Amino acid sequence: MFASWLKSSNDITAQFLAAGKLPDMVNLGGGLPDAGLYPETEIKSYAAQILYGSSSEWLEYAPVAGIASLRQAIAKLETENGLASAPENILVTSGGLQGLSIVGQAFLDFGAPAAVQSPAYLGLIDAWRPRQPEWASFNVHDTQALKAAFTASNLAYLMPAFANPDGACLADQELEHIVQVAAEHGTLMVEDDPYRELYFDTPTPLSLSARAKAAGLPYLHIGSLSKTLAPGLRAGWINAPAEIIERLTLVKQGSDMTSPGLPQLLAEAAIRNRLMDTQLPKLRAAYKARCSALLNALDTHLGDWFEWRAPTGGMFVWVTSKREDIDTTKLFEAGLKHGVCISPGVVFDPIGADTKTARLNFTFNTEAKIEEGVRRLAKAVQDTLR
Amino acid sequence: MFASWLKSSNDITAQFLAAGKLPDMVNLGGGLPDAGLYPETEIKSYAAQILYGSSSEWLEYAPVAGIASLRQAIAKLETENGLASAPENILVTSGGLQGLSIVGQAFLDFGAPAAVQSPAYLGLIDAWRPRQPEWASFNVHDTQALKAAFTASNLAYLMPAFANPDGACLADQELEHIVQVAAEHGTLMVEDDPYRELYFDTPTPLSLSARAKAAGLPYLHIGSLSKTLAPGLRAGWINAPAEIIERLTLVKQGSDMTSPGLPQLLAEAAIRNRLMDTQLPKLRAAYKARCSALLNALDTHLGDWFEWRAPTGGMFVWVTSKREDIDTTKLFEAGLKHGVCISPGVVFDPIGADTKTARLNFTFNTEAKIEEGVRRLAKAVQDTLR
Repeated sequence: MFASWLKSSNDITAQFLAAGKLPDMVNLGGGLPDAGLYPETEIKSYAAQILYGSSSEWLEYAPVAGIASLRQAIAKLETENGLASAPENILVTSGGLQGLSIVGQAFLDFGAPAAVQSPAYLGLIDAWRPRQPEWASFNVHDTQALKAAFTASNLAYLMPAFANPDGACLADQELEHIVQVAAEHGTLMVEDDPYRELYFDTPTPLSLSARAKAAGLPYLHIGSLSKTLAPGLRAGWINAPAEIIERLTLVKQGSDMTSPGLPQLLAEAAIRNRLMDTQLPKLRAAYKARCSALLNALDTHLGDWFEWRAPTGGMFVWVTSKREDIDTTKLFEAGLKHGVCISPGVVFDPIGADTKTARLNFTFNTEAKIEEGVRRLAKAVQDTLR
Repeated sequence: MFASWLKSSNDITAQFLAAGKLPDMVNLGGGLPDAGLYPETEIKSYAAQILYGSSSEWLEYAPVAGIASLRQAIAKLETENGLASAPENILVTSGGLQGLSIVGQAFLDFGAPAAVQSPAYLGLIDAWRPRQPEWASFNVHDTQALKAAFTASNLAYLMPAFANPDGACLADQELEHIVQVAAEHGTLMVEDDPYRELYFDTPTPLSLSARAKAAGLPYLHIGSLSKTLAPGLRAGWINAPAEIIERLTLVKQGSDMTSPGLPQLLAEAAIRNRLMDTQLPKLRAAYKARCSALLNALDTHLGDWFEWRAPTGGMFVWVTSKREDIDTTKLFEAGLKHGVCISPGVVFDPIGADTKTARLNFTFNTEAKIEEGVRRLAKAVQDTLR
């Protein structure tokens, strides 16, 4: 009855969203911001201005590519972040994930190869799976693997800034090298960039897309306000050369016609009022402290069994087991019984084989709850080793 | 560079949305409600209640399948309309169109046959084109064609109530017959039903989905508040057996993760406050009068060249040329020069061959403007005959 690709799908994202709302569960598995840090007062005041304003254009169909003032605001934001952009470079999407889905539909013929930075973002796998791609995974730090993947596929997915799931942030030299490999192989890079602003101390290096544009190459920059403003607005975009945006707009048209107007106007107001100028320092400080709490708890409770690198931003610590007898898929199940949810590495592996790694989130919970979650996780490890 | 299906796409929907906003153009081409009839005051009062309420859950990710209270409200609405439903039968989508896109992804393997009521809804063609289906068009009134299409494909798209584009509304007997053919061939019917409530006088017959459910068959009922409340909320849903909804939720997850929360809560408030009870009689009366105005103008100005059937609801009159030398694709172009936009039949034909028909909308414009639009169209016809 169902299309064949759907048989290989899973509902783990839905499980994470649900686990994030269970009262007794410490959810280290999801990728959620701290809801307590959403700029609720400011967003509600923008909403009041829109509601009592003279226009109720937001009740009508928005233009397919997005409301003009929002496209303009996003173009300005992207330009400030080093990627010179005009409104015609911007397609408004419902979250960054819809941008990935649209790109997959637009550029992947059925069964075509797709180069994907691995461990891979779960949402990307979900978004591209309906095209049944032949996954060409690559470790972004491995030059040979990168070249092989860019040779295999015309389209390459990358998340260079605080990657989900492994937290890696590429340095200038690596980024330059990747652009060069893309240029040599004629590979179009899809740069998924939702965590760029969530650095702890040192600003994130210039994006791949800005470098590609400077080199005269095409680029696809996927942006989102879900991690920096609030995910419930589903404020995302694709930034690309205008002639690409024109075609992608047709895919958006066939996906959901247009995004709802009111969330678009709220996102526009947030950018116009420079809400990020006050919001981002708060997020950076809070998440840096939480990351430290997670790293300390890991040192205390899990140091014998796992290793990790301290991230410099983003939302995740990526742990790798040091022992053969630890299976993180089993640990995920055991963790749920002990009241802690983690993301097992298997879900970030397009072919579902990884059992050595796990992703731990440090943004959603308070420091005390993170500590408690890691303590529970240590008990779960002991359980699986029995 | 682009996937092969995208070469066959077009931006005519975007053109219609744009033409709807040109100040000097009489837009008979789009499928827009009259923005003057949106229940702006009521929707704004719901918004104020939500904003000043204690919960700001709408800033967070909503559940993938939709906010629970909205699923419940839609299930109740569907039950009142004859299709007994529980919340687990409902997947909230961003407009009816996203429902169609999700269904296409879930049920169509690449290049699989797709039975489509023809003339076909343009949005359906857009939504399913990325699956590169082999279109099996059928005239819904032609028993032989229906059987052939249901034999060719496991999935059949139908719009039985005031079809877009041709306005046809099927009677009980025809509906029963279609359900019987579907049962015989094991065909899953996708019933697109956004116009159901827009009858002029006589309530619309029970849906295909309600009949299928009563017969123990699976069903897919695509609903929307875009035509009855306001399109900018993008309030749509899929109603299906719970085990199908579970799988479709995975497709939604890979499409845009979740729909934004605030428009979902506005739709929920509108249903809970029974806004339709006051809104629908207003729409029915206004659209009936406008339809009469269009039919009168057609009689006066276009009777020598075209024929049509008077609709009993919906948003469109479907005209067919009586003369060999009238080409409606050329007429569309000529109309734009005379300040009137129509929808040529070619866009509703999956294989793009129809040049004899056109769709005229009667909901968007005042009666005076409709009359003026038809007058301009008559001049455009004369131009193309020169």
